[in-house]
Amino acid sequence: MPLYRVTLAYDGTDFQGWQSQRAGSRTVQGELEAALGRLAGGGRVAVAGAGRTDAGVHAEGQVASFELARPVAGPDLRRALNGLLPEDVRVLFASLAPEGFHARRSAVSKLYRYALDCGGVRLPQRRRFAAFVPYALDPAAVERAAALYLGRHDFASLASSGGSAKTSVRTVSRSLVLFETTGLVYEVAADGFLRKMVRSMVGGLIAAGRGAVSVDELARALEACDRRAWPAPAPACGLTLVRVVYPTMLG
Amino acid sequence: MPLYRVTLAYDGTDFQGWQSQRAGSRTVQGELEAALGRLAGGGRVAVAGAGRTDAGVHAEGQVASFELARPVAGPDLRRALNGLLPEDVRVLFASLAPEGFHARRSAVSKLYRYALDCGGVRLPQRRRFAAFVPYALDPAAVERAAALYLGRHDFASLASSGGSAKTSVRTVSRSLVLFETTGLVYEVAADGFLRKMVRSMVGGLIAAGRGAVSVDELARALEACDRRAWPAPAPACGLTLVRVVYPTMLG
Repeated sequence: MPLYRVTLAYDGTDFQGWQSQRAGSRTVQGELEAALGRLAGGGRVAVAGAGRTDAGVHAEGQVASFELARPVAGPDLRRALNGLLPEDVRVLFASLAPEGFHARRSAVSKLYRYALDCGGVRLPQRRRFAAFVPYALDPAAVERAAALYLGRHDFASLASSGGSAKTSVRTVSRSLVLFETTGLVYEVAADGFLRKMVRSMVGGLIAAGRGAVSVDELARALEACDRRAWPAPAPACGLTLVRVVYPTMLG
Repeated sequence: MPLYRVTLAYDGTDFQGWQSQRAGSRTVQGELEAALGRLAGGGRVAVAGAGRTDAGVHAEGQVASFELARPVAGPDLRRALNGLLPEDVRVLFASLAPEGFHARRSAVSKLYRYALDCGGVRLPQRRRFAAFVPYALDPAAVERAAALYLGRHDFASLASSGGSAKTSVRTVSRSLVLFETTGLVYEVAADGFLRKMVRSMVGGLIAAGRGAVSVDELARALEACDRRAWPAPAPACGLTLVRVVYPTMLG
């Protein structure tokens, strides 16, 4: 059966994440499978997603793969799916995928972005896509904390329970803070992320930036491999899965 | 009684505009008056707004003025109001206003911004604050159409019925199109705007940009002073009241 790959954007506000344990909850995977089921004329089409985004987390470049019984051209598939999907999830691109492609297993890295507004008044226009803390953060402490994450570490302290990963060692290739008028944007890329890992990273940036912990204490909490040692994760609304990277041979 | 001035931001999606003719509808003015009534310990506080934004139109710099029986410091007023207002409207600044200040009558100009995404797929993230047309627009035609609006004109063709203005002559001091990856942003400033005038201006840009009318035909439709001659107004969701300008003596 022909194998397909789609790139998705969604506003995660009204979703219980990419997939959900609970029956009856509204998920992005569920909406996509329902649309594909209708396209395929009934029957379940199983979809694999690159990142299992949590409830409330957004995407601009989530990737999903699935098989369809009948061949269909990429632009036609995109148009048909966008006609069936709800407005808060859109297919940006659709194409045939190379043999053996799997949205999650083939991925070599992912890039996430976290938007955080700091201090002052929370702009209604940014409510859905930026988190808010009502105090200013020390930029130097935030940058030093972000630098802690770079490289290969055991991130067990930053993983929430319930994940299915065999190891909590990950390699972070980008951990960058951009300061803006209303707050900051944090960009982080790694070969993989544990459950709630990005939100925990941002929780660490906030704790260091407001002086609740020192950067040295944060470094020790990372080394401790104990999630009770780590500050609380930041809210889901600020987080967006921006891009999933595949080996060149898989496009 | 001390006179106050507040600058407001709101997500207009869930409001029936700044004010409404219909009883029981949710308006920004109504929410602000309710919050001020509670602050003042009951009784109605009448609020004047600089721009009567339509249902679904947003603001980043709406200005309102009102009197309070008791004096209160600006930052305290801001904090108190933000504690009482719903999340989709925020007070950005609050201060005492000079004697004789009136948010609407004292204004000398207003700046609006309209965000329009063109072609491709409508990003869920931009749904609330950008309108969408599913085709590309000719940039040269859009720019020539925007230039038509500059200067002093009778804009009767661009006014919807039901407005209360005595004259439909306005002077447009800025009419600028910025082209972006996903579409365009239109900025327009004038000494005042008629009802639905900005949305009609954008309707004209879209009609010219897609070739439904020529720019010459649009020029004649403007001169006709007949709203039946003008293309349909663009949707409310793309429009934001950015700034209201007052004479220097009024701050």
